[in-house]
Amino acid sequence: MPTYKLYYFSGRGRGEVARMVFAVAGVPYEDIRLNAEEWAKLKPDTVCGQVPELEVDGVRIPESRAIYRFLAREYEPSQLAHATTFHVCLKHASLFGDNNLETAKIEAACCLLEDFFEKIVKAKLRKEFQSEICGKYTNKIEQFLAAVNPNGDYLVGNKLTLADILFLHHYHDFVHVACNCARAACLTTHPTLMKVYENVLANENMQAWLKRRPLTDH
Amino acid sequence: MPTYKLYYFSGRGRGEVARMVFAVAGVPYEDIRLNAEEWAKLKPDTVCGQVPELEVDGVRIPESRAIYRFLAREYEPSQLAHATTFHVCLKHASLFGDNNLETAKIEAACCLLEDFFEKIVKAKLRKEFQSEICGKYTNKIEQFLAAVNPNGDYLVGNKLTLADILFLHHYHDFVHVACNCARAACLTTHPTLMKVYENVLANENMQAWLKRRPLTDH
Repeated sequence: MPTYKLYYFSGRGRGEVARMVFAVAGVPYEDIRLNAEEWAKLKPDTVCGQVPELEVDGVRIPESRAIYRFLAREYEPSQLAHATTFHVCLKHASLFGDNNLETAKIEAACCLLEDFFEKIVKAKLRKEFQSEICGKYTNKIEQFLAAVNPNGDYLVGNKLTLADILFLHHYHDFVHVACNCARAACLTTHPTLMKVYENVLANENMQAWLKRRPLTDH
Repeated sequence: MPTYKLYYFSGRGRGEVARMVFAVAGVPYEDIRLNAEEWAKLKPDTVCGQVPELEVDGVRIPESRAIYRFLAREYEPSQLAHATTFHVCLKHASLFGDNNLETAKIEAACCLLEDFFEKIVKAKLRKEFQSEICGKYTNKIEQFLAAVNPNGDYLVGNKLTLADILFLHHYHDFVHVACNCARAACLTTHPTLMKVYENVLANENMQAWLKRRPLTDH
């Protein structure tokens, strides 16, 4: 198994989904949380002048979305998986789908959730807009589920994927902080989405991570 | 080969990169360009209430970024490829990389270029900001190339990938319209990036597409 070092600040932010993928896959890594001084020192050596950055056996990957897609292609949930790792081209199951068409659906769900994230970050000083954006995107995600995977236990297909991890992250942590509401409060009027949320939350490795991760504001 | 239908408006916008991937791969598809009336009729049946949407043997994929990643995983440039198609899990070469680590680098470059696109769209009413954003992101892309593929003929590795197609699209069409400047004018002071631009432009299928595509304002 390669050696992974994840560089980010001491917060969830744009680093947390990568950490969640590591957790769900049961893969060890070094979770390096930079303080201001360490970041100033590291910055000139990063690929894009920003973190998160993932080091894979010394090769540096920038951009949060590239990082967690890479990891999701590399691994499957550890409950279902063998202890060894497989390369995406050599296997047919990962957190990013079992075939290219399924991957495309997972990718589409991720894009929708990432747009949601960016819109809400942009509106961070305007709480009223955040609730509005939250309502709009929750409807969009429900529409997506109805079209792509009606009655599905997960957003795409019949097992946990990267899209579900992003989904959990958003409603467990991000919407909660942004809209100053209870966790997953947006989902109480969306039972089909709430079922997906609870299925992801039921993942033992995810639960363990949520309990053991450092407590941070964001 | 599957039957593809690409639904979008009669413009480049968020549909053009998918068309470019089809062109470079030499893969036939139906390029459906909707007028206002057709769009109003189609909208309720789309997955996310928006286009582009790609239909693959009747299966609908929304979200532009998901669409062109799907196609890039499915195909390689036709000059180098066989006439038959291969599934990503069964082959080791595509427009999205030959292995997972290379794919991650291509993905990172795509993320950087997509951020650029979104920032400049957001600033569309403020021309001065568009030039500023253009300068900033051109520097970032140069920094990426220097770190990931110094002296490379392409953004990642030694052959054309999705990242290069996005890059060409941005500097050939998008920056050109947004900043009201000559094509690739931003690159004249960046010789390493200009070399990549010219290498992508030299692709015969890309050249043919640029000549034969419908002339639209955006």
